[in-house]
Amino acid sequence: MMHKRALTKPDGRALTLYARAPVEGEFVAPSPSATPHAPNPHLRWHPLRAEWVAYAGHRQNRTFLPPAEYNPLAPTTDPAHPTEVPPGGWDVAVFDNLFPTFASSAQDPPHLAIPTAPGLGACEVVVFTQDADASLGRLPLWHIELLIDVWADRYSELGGRHDIKYVFPFENRGVEVGVTLHHPHGQIYAYPFVPPIPARALEQQRLYYDQHGTGLLEQMVAQEVSARTRLLYHGPHVAAFIPICARYAYEVWIAPHRGAPSMAAMSAEERGDFARALKTVLLKLDGMWQRPMPYIMAFQQAPTDGDAHPEAHVHAQIYPALRMPDRLKYLAGSEIGAGVFTADTLPESAVTQLQAITVSVDA
Amino acid sequence: MMHKRALTKPDGRALTLYARAPVEGEFVAPSPSATPHAPNPHLRWHPLRAEWVAYAGHRQNRTFLPPAEYNPLAPTTDPAHPTEVPPGGWDVAVFDNLFPTFASSAQDPPHLAIPTAPGLGACEVVVFTQDADASLGRLPLWHIELLIDVWADRYSELGGRHDIKYVFPFENRGVEVGVTLHHPHGQIYAYPFVPPIPARALEQQRLYYDQHGTGLLEQMVAQEVSARTRLLYHGPHVAAFIPICARYAYEVWIAPHRGAPSMAAMSAEERGDFARALKTVLLKLDGMWQRPMPYIMAFQQAPTDGDAHPEAHVHAQIYPALRMPDRLKYLAGSEIGAGVFTADTLPESAVTQLQAITVSVDA
Repeated sequence: MMHKRALTKPDGRALTLYARAPVEGEFVAPSPSATPHAPNPHLRWHPLRAEWVAYAGHRQNRTFLPPAEYNPLAPTTDPAHPTEVPPGGWDVAVFDNLFPTFASSAQDPPHLAIPTAPGLGACEVVVFTQDADASLGRLPLWHIELLIDVWADRYSELGGRHDIKYVFPFENRGVEVGVTLHHPHGQIYAYPFVPPIPARALEQQRLYYDQHGTGLLEQMVAQEVSARTRLLYHGPHVAAFIPICARYAYEVWIAPHRGAPSMAAMSAEERGDFARALKTVLLKLDGMWQRPMPYIMAFQQAPTDGDAHPEAHVHAQIYPALRMPDRLKYLAGSEIGAGVFTADTLPESAVTQLQAITVSVDA
Repeated sequence: MMHKRALTKPDGRALTLYARAPVEGEFVAPSPSATPHAPNPHLRWHPLRAEWVAYAGHRQNRTFLPPAEYNPLAPTTDPAHPTEVPPGGWDVAVFDNLFPTFASSAQDPPHLAIPTAPGLGACEVVVFTQDADASLGRLPLWHIELLIDVWADRYSELGGRHDIKYVFPFENRGVEVGVTLHHPHGQIYAYPFVPPIPARALEQQRLYYDQHGTGLLEQMVAQEVSARTRLLYHGPHVAAFIPICARYAYEVWIAPHRGAPSMAAMSAEERGDFARALKTVLLKLDGMWQRPMPYIMAFQQAPTDGDAHPEAHVHAQIYPALRMPDRLKYLAGSEIGAGVFTADTLPESAVTQLQAITVSVDA
């Protein structure tokens, strides 16, 4: 059962506290910034790539590896040095990013020789837990289930806004992918358009759906479950595997068997099994080399553009940054300049290392 | 004037020596590997991204930051420890990569639940100079002009092969972008298909060309030259600028005013001015923070697929990895998972730092 409490920070930003138990008592929403929050990012159209680029000039000096004594994602203990979240009985907190790339306050973009637009939308920070030393994979199952409920709630709330067409939760983990704050947290970007990568995937899914009357990802999941070769988790509702077309050595996809279009559309049973799959995969990744695996985790789901999306199928894609214990996978000339990924390992051989790692998820 | 000499290494790989003066005398093409070269990479079709992923399993253990005494790109001095290039009178050398992602020997791809194909094509290493301590920007103008002639020659030679549809020269520079060998060098990937990024750009260019009868990039270059705001170099034939839609803080594009479709199609005057523009930009990037700027430099040009490409316009895109002297631009959740770049600085303000750097190119 998910409980929530909506608050407003003194600078005008939203803060929502989520918990398994009712969120009771008095809360004061803190903010490290006192000035009223009115960010004004804008978009520019890239004529060659045919995509929007987002400009948020104020982000250049954002918080970067602050000293250990100041953690803006830990509950405030000294009111003279407010953090982003209050002390008290909450399990997950969500607040508006102080340095957003998209914001509902965006207006009056510059007039340029290319199309421009206000950077409408939202950028939220999702604090996974009050415990600065935890990690997503080490949270108890009930806590990960709650987090999925939170992501589903954000999908519904943000997706209900008329200026938001795509709700994108993700986690960047590790200094290797540029993480500035080590407290377990993720982010949600809510875009005023369907971004290029999900747009292209949804186009393929739509073509497949129109032709076969079933989902492309449903078929891929069923195929992986049947083949078992690349399988990492097989539950009653959800599967996890290294995809047959993995671009990163230890890339993992997690998806329900059924083509539920969004987190909000997953049943309680699916969410529970998704939490179990996610925990299994993250503990395997950390266990493989006995070190926290740096990664980018992206959740793809149906756009919130008002159209029906029977082709959509909610899933997580995890891109670990390492291809060997001490070697990063760099995106260089071919990947960045041409868009062609070059993989050094076959999915069928990489997966055996993760399959061999035994983990305990019933905690 | 470009002179060349084609050789074959003992393992079967090609080596071509290029020089301003005739390449005279006896040469023995060395190789650090004695076993016959028969790489067999394959491609797998990514159903969601609708793109090919290249698998070259043998690359995992490729040369990585070898000790200083062994530099495979320096001329061989001790025949007992052969490098990739011989001593003698050459200025630029090109040879088949020992660990290619694409190779003409590719055959019999695995049968899988998704489409597969042999990884046909070529991966070449371009040694810019015999001087291990030089850098591309510090080479004299005549040497950079020769290098452009070499790139043009490779375009014609590789592009003439029936299995190659796109010739892509690039340079990865700096440990920040994963460079394993510090000797000045670039690479050429020759793909058996038109890769996604140039394919999308060419599609936009074609739409523009069909509508306006002139090139999209011609129009963008003319606009930058006219506005001057983001301009870094303006020669009689070539311009360099931070594009109005820059995704990286100090991204630079270099292009001839005229829509020459490829390096091979550039006139001698255009090549000379391109060399001058390239040298100017690279010295400015290194001069800005008094340190070598890590970057990816990608050259886009017309496909070699047999079709006419009046929409194509050869150009270089340089993506510097740093957004501040000590801060990398990380590609994280939004860029990698959604395909939306978030820029922290405006092109119009970043460019002023590069405009302020005075460089001497007449060396």
